[in-house]
Amino acid sequence: MRTAQTEPTAAPEERTGVWLIGARGSVATTAVVGAAAIRAGLARQTGCVAALPPFAELGLPDFDRLVFGGHDIDETPLVKRAEQLADAGVLPQALLGPLAADLAEADAEIRPVGGGGAGRQDLLIETLAADIDSFRRRAGLDRVVVVNVATTEPLAEPDPACASTEALDTALVAGESPLPYSAVYAYAALKSGCAYVDFTPSAGARLPALHAYAVAAGLPYAGSDGKTGETLVKSALMPMFARRALAVRSWSGTNLLGGGDGAALAEPSRARSKVESKRRVLDEGLGHPVEGGVHIHHIAALGDWKTAWDHIVFDGFLDVRMTMQFTWEGCDSALAAPLVLDLARFMALAHRAGESGPVPALGFFFKDPVGSTVHGLEEQFTALVDWARAAAAVRV
Amino acid sequence: MRTAQTEPTAAPEERTGVWLIGARGSVATTAVVGAAAIRAGLARQTGCVAALPPFAELGLPDFDRLVFGGHDIDETPLVKRAEQLADAGVLPQALLGPLAADLAEADAEIRPVGGGGAGRQDLLIETLAADIDSFRRRAGLDRVVVVNVATTEPLAEPDPACASTEALDTALVAGESPLPYSAVYAYAALKSGCAYVDFTPSAGARLPALHAYAVAAGLPYAGSDGKTGETLVKSALMPMFARRALAVRSWSGTNLLGGGDGAALAEPSRARSKVESKRRVLDEGLGHPVEGGVHIHHIAALGDWKTAWDHIVFDGFLDVRMTMQFTWEGCDSALAAPLVLDLARFMALAHRAGESGPVPALGFFFKDPVGSTVHGLEEQFTALVDWARAAAAVRV
Amino acid sequence: MRTAQTEPTAAPEERTGVWLIGARGSVATTAVVGAAAIRAGLARQTGCVAALPPFAELGLPDFDRLVFGGHDIDETPLVKRAEQLADAGVLPQALLGPLAADLAEADAEIRPVGGGGAGRQDLLIETLAADIDSFRRRAGLDRVVVVNVATTEPLAEPDPACASTEALDTALVAGESPLPYSAVYAYAALKSGCAYVDFTPSAGARLPALHAYAVAAGLPYAGSDGKTGETLVKSALMPMFARRALAVRSWSGTNLLGGGDGAALAEPSRARSKVESKRRVLDEGLGHPVEGGVHIHHIAALGDWKTAWDHIVFDGFLDVRMTMQFTWEGCDSALAAPLVLDLARFMALAHRAGESGPVPALGFFFKDPVGSTVHGLEEQFTALVDWARAAAAVRV
Amino acid sequence: MRTAQTEPTAAPEERTGVWLIGARGSVATTAVVGAAAIRAGLARQTGCVAALPPFAELGLPDFDRLVFGGHDIDETPLVKRAEQLADAGVLPQALLGPLAADLAEADAEIRPVGGGGAGRQDLLIETLAADIDSFRRRAGLDRVVVVNVATTEPLAEPDPACASTEALDTALVAGESPLPYSAVYAYAALKSGCAYVDFTPSAGARLPALHAYAVAAGLPYAGSDGKTGETLVKSALMPMFARRALAVRSWSGTNLLGGGDGAALAEPSRARSKVESKRRVLDEGLGHPVEGGVHIHHIAALGDWKTAWDHIVFDGFLDVRMTMQFTWEGCDSALAAPLVLDLARFMALAHRAGESGPVPALGFFFKDPVGSTVHGLEEQFTALVDWARAAAAVRV
Repeated sequence: MRTAQTEPTAAPEERTGVWLIGARGSVATTAVVGAAAIRAGLARQTGCVAALPPFAELGLPDFDRLVFGGHDIDETPLVKRAEQLADAGVLPQALLGPLAADLAEADAEIRPVGGGGAGRQDLLIETLAADIDSFRRRAGLDRVVVVNVATTEPLAEPDPACASTEALDTALVAGESPLPYSAVYAYAALKSGCAYVDFTPSAGARLPALHAYAVAAGLPYAGSDGKTGETLVKSALMPMFARRALAVRSWSGTNLLGGGDGAALAEPSRARSKVESKRRVLDEGLGHPVEGGVHIHHIAALGDWKTAWDHIVFDGFLDVRMTMQFTWEGCDSALAAPLVLDLARFMALAHRAGESGPVPALGFFFKDPVGSTVHGLEEQFTALVDWARAAAAVRV
Repeated sequence: MRTAQTEPTAAPEERTGVWLIGARGSVATTAVVGAAAIRAGLARQTGCVAALPPFAELGLPDFDRLVFGGHDIDETPLVKRAEQLADAGVLPQALLGPLAADLAEADAEIRPVGGGGAGRQDLLIETLAADIDSFRRRAGLDRVVVVNVATTEPLAEPDPACASTEALDTALVAGESPLPYSAVYAYAALKSGCAYVDFTPSAGARLPALHAYAVAAGLPYAGSDGKTGETLVKSALMPMFARRALAVRSWSGTNLLGGGDGAALAEPSRARSKVESKRRVLDEGLGHPVEGGVHIHHIAALGDWKTAWDHIVFDGFLDVRMTMQFTWEGCDSALAAPLVLDLARFMALAHRAGESGPVPALGFFFKDPVGSTVHGLEEQFTALVDWARAAAAVRV
Repeated sequence: MRTAQTEPTAAPEERTGVWLIGARGSVATTAVVGAAAIRAGLARQTGCVAALPPFAELGLPDFDRLVFGGHDIDETPLVKRAEQLADAGVLPQALLGPLAADLAEADAEIRPVGGGGAGRQDLLIETLAADIDSFRRRAGLDRVVVVNVATTEPLAEPDPACASTEALDTALVAGESPLPYSAVYAYAALKSGCAYVDFTPSAGARLPALHAYAVAAGLPYAGSDGKTGETLVKSALMPMFARRALAVRSWSGTNLLGGGDGAALAEPSRARSKVESKRRVLDEGLGHPVEGGVHIHHIAALGDWKTAWDHIVFDGFLDVRMTMQFTWEGCDSALAAPLVLDLARFMALAHRAGESGPVPALGFFFKDPVGSTVHGLEEQFTALVDWARAAAAVRV
Repeated sequence: MRTAQTEPTAAPEERTGVWLIGARGSVATTAVVGAAAIRAGLARQTGCVAALPPFAELGLPDFDRLVFGGHDIDETPLVKRAEQLADAGVLPQALLGPLAADLAEADAEIRPVGGGGAGRQDLLIETLAADIDSFRRRAGLDRVVVVNVATTEPLAEPDPACASTEALDTALVAGESPLPYSAVYAYAALKSGCAYVDFTPSAGARLPALHAYAVAAGLPYAGSDGKTGETLVKSALMPMFARRALAVRSWSGTNLLGGGDGAALAEPSRARSKVESKRRVLDEGLGHPVEGGVHIHHIAALGDWKTAWDHIVFDGFLDVRMTMQFTWEGCDSALAAPLVLDLARFMALAHRAGESGPVPALGFFFKDPVGSTVHGLEEQFTALVDWARAAAAVRV
């Protein structure tokens, strides 16, 4: 950050673009519908962290200053996706009529993911960045935040070319394809001068080459893997055991996921990304490795819903063994969408305040917080409030 | 507190008495056995909050400086109670032999609750206070902390005589019995110059007459109702919903309790004390009244164990309704006993630091924290650490 | 039954009336919509026991031979009630348009519950019976089955006048009101020559005076209290413990109910009916009294849904104590409605076969089966199949 | 069976040997201790199916007519294993003293699993069979039932030599090792003229070569994989859904196992045996394939205990989607041991009655019943009672 002041410098007149990778997916559609509903006074800000009192006067961009666009390989119209979600009980049926124009507007700003010249990553990155530039210009935006809500990519060994910006650029120019696809989008976002958020466990901007680029370019990024359900509960319960000196012996988690995310995670290589990000939470959160593990199973019958069951064995006084279990039954898109909106708004603040590189204070939103090993939810919230106040006070 | 210093003034040479009301109950017996086991190096301090790093250098009395005694109407020898608890899986069988002498020593310091002259409360208070005085003298103690771990008393309308110390003393001199029994013990403790802790939801020192007496006498007190299970989890989960702006619509709790506590709470008038203390947590913790309620059922088959099931309905984004459930299966005495020891040690610190009246920073340990409406566990922990550091720094 | 034959005597040309007490309630509305949807080929017979293979050739009345009517004090149009249920996710929105005519038709056959001359029960019974007679004539029905799906009535001491038909008639003629309201409807049904089903725990036809009347009139009746959720699971699990010689030590049930039924059962006197009917299941089903109990709590936030949590403590070999828990999350109306249709169809069979008095073989459907103490679900199913085959074989 | 009579032919004077493969394991130790405790009047027959009224007069061998022996590669004395189990809460501490002589007696009859000449399977089978023959002679037994309670073996493709007795014997004589180890024991049991029970999912006597041998030799066998927890509950709940025409959409099971069995099943190839046997139950029990799956995870912290969580999604009327969950927390050895004793006693009856080949009526005890696809627990119980009555009536 640059210099701090005592007074937050609200900038309500600014217009912020929210560019969604996977813009026709369930989470993105729910975010677009929800933002429009809130703007129209048709919905409350339930689930929106930025609506809480501590953030009231910090100049976060209002809902009527957010403009949506994005990339997607799917071509189903947003309005159709919204209908599907309404049939599944994720969106209220009654919203679809009044918000049809908003959906059409966002739909018109969604770009396909084209070839880029015989599949060369350097050309693809250029095309994607140009799409975002064009969006910024046409919509008259002060800044754009790019949020990746696409399907989780398989966990892969990073290509050596990802180790530095120079190596990466050399490989790209040579026509190589060293980047996992999430990083292609991340690089395009950064090249286009945008703040970048990874809501999935994919590699994204965390690769050393992209991290270095972001720092050099003075761009903030945040991630990874939105904390929406089982891990959210974990991050509230782990400190409970720790503060009471109760010794957790095992923590076993089973996640039943329907929907597209569930289907993707039924592939072991994709699930590995998420399982590792969930597992790290426990070891880092409790301060020592713990028996158990996290398991993800695809259950199509659950639709857009997910159920997590966690079983915890712990020792109390004189090593008496006890257990706790919880079941979390949530709607995946309804849990994720408000956080996507929160992140867009907080990242607009970070961008305006001149932050560059990872923003650890946004770890509150993530399973695998880049730049931080804090997982306790309250500690994360306190850090978020402190950071947001300071960032809002930066004279820009 | 008096004047603060930079350096904690450890006082390891001090001897602290722990006087337990209900000294032959399961919680008290477990506390006495556990303290002896830790002192003898036969057990770890699992479940002991005071053993956590933030409290390491604050001069809390060590386990080898604690001396136990107490009152009880029961006459079963402690060693017999310990055997019963070992048979029930609450205490490790292997500890009983090596700790027989410690149990006998504590047993010798437990006094019956005698008549006090035709049941007059004023005489009873005198007798009880004399018992504690005698214990302090004989054992060469610097101070005594009295902890009420007796059976929960029925919730009753307070007698008008409890409104001020003067009115109370007048009534007592007149041979009246205006005090609920928990307050008889509390008054005796205060009259004997002791710090007082109410680990039950009983009235104890909270009556205006006793509160005023404690303040005037420069004595600290703490309570009420140890937070050992369902409410502990609540206090970790409520902030999760709040920090994520998720709207809790209902929170229903069912508690199945075996053992003596379960049997006592099967009486509706006693259960009311606990149910109200549990209920307040939710309303205060979430900041608004919530549908549901807390129900307590006695299940003798559970022995010293208790099972709580909580069911929570909450709304997320666009008011999509979701649910969470948890089951907590704990051993009541093993959960409560280390907190009793913690409270004795922290209250010794409060007493030494010259605190008087309620100690809100000990709210971390209670369902119904006297002097505080904070229920979030992390907030409470932070307050406890801050307070303990300041208290330890007081020059005495 | 009269004489049995080898061949079932199907009577598909018969028309059966289904007269619902509480015809505008959620269960009745769901039954009417569902029957119309099945008739129109818009829905499968999921949840319909009579659709199972063993009952395929027994001449049960088809859905296109069922005609609906009933009594209700409420006047909300059925189509409006159906919309409310669709909004709550109980009925598929898509059914309402195509079935509008069916709903209107049933709506036209619902009668208010009028005065009956200064509230005299004898006159009220006459009026109610006349309503049913008129329905039967107008619709050209071979028989009518009356099903009580009204709100559970408070449990009350029976009036001595209910001990015999003579005493009852004498009291009624004298202008007295000896009958609980469920029995007013039951008596009207019987007087009108109808088979009667009590789907609630209310007194209904079980009063000695009404039982005697049914037997004398050659009319069958069945009840009480449809087994739709927690008790259904109990009746599947109790035999499991018994067949494995596992000793159940406690069985505690907590029922969270939203909706109208939940609100009614929040009144302790009404809940008592249901709690006692649920409790009896356990004692009779396990063959010995068991610690625990059944608790019902109203949670409006659950809407038409209900959640039951049961906790079971049992002993295995060498008295090792173990536990089992289950959570059942069901939609009350969707669980009850198909059973109401099943009962109407099976009772038409019973009526045609000349059964009189209670039909114990229908105990499969009830928490508190009249004329039976069998609660094991498989035993009940076998009895149902055997009875239905025999009844279908009766030459009428 | 041979010819049937009206009167059961009790044979209380017969002595039956119970030869346990894995005789020093937790299940075997618990069975030996329990049988001795029952014989001595120190324990009830909780968990013993054969103690139920329907089997009272069928001449099953009494506990004082059972003699124990077995094979094990482990050499820990039984009394030591019993102490370990008592420390873990599986066996009551108080039994160990009074039953020391019984344990020593059984211990003396446990044989190591020796070489058999350079590891040749034919010689090993001879040695094992000779051990059993010697036990039968020395103990003066009328018959011996061999029960496999050893660790689950990895699932393997059967060797072609297992396709017929001739091919098998040819391969064995040629010094080959075509048999999985469970089948080595099974063949030894059959060659020694014993009835054989497979309490694990291992191949055992089900291989065509061994099946043919058993039939030819007039020996009964039973299996596979004792139904002790999650699957037991499944077999009670599946018929509930079926009888109510509720459409099960998914059924997901998670099993957390401590102890030796859990460690063995942490190996994927061993777990596969059990997972497949558990999976078949659902598909066969519900009559159609169901989404979901069974997962087994090793949690050492659970000791001898296991926890299963099952999550079921089902459709009711008008395809309203609902869910059920259950958690089963049981002690593995305490659940299995009484069934091992039951099976020994019922197989003695089968042997006496002249049964040969698989005994499908014992499917009640197994996850994967050999010779049967019935999985509903009540149907299985009825079949068991019918069979036992008929077998008891055989004149031998």
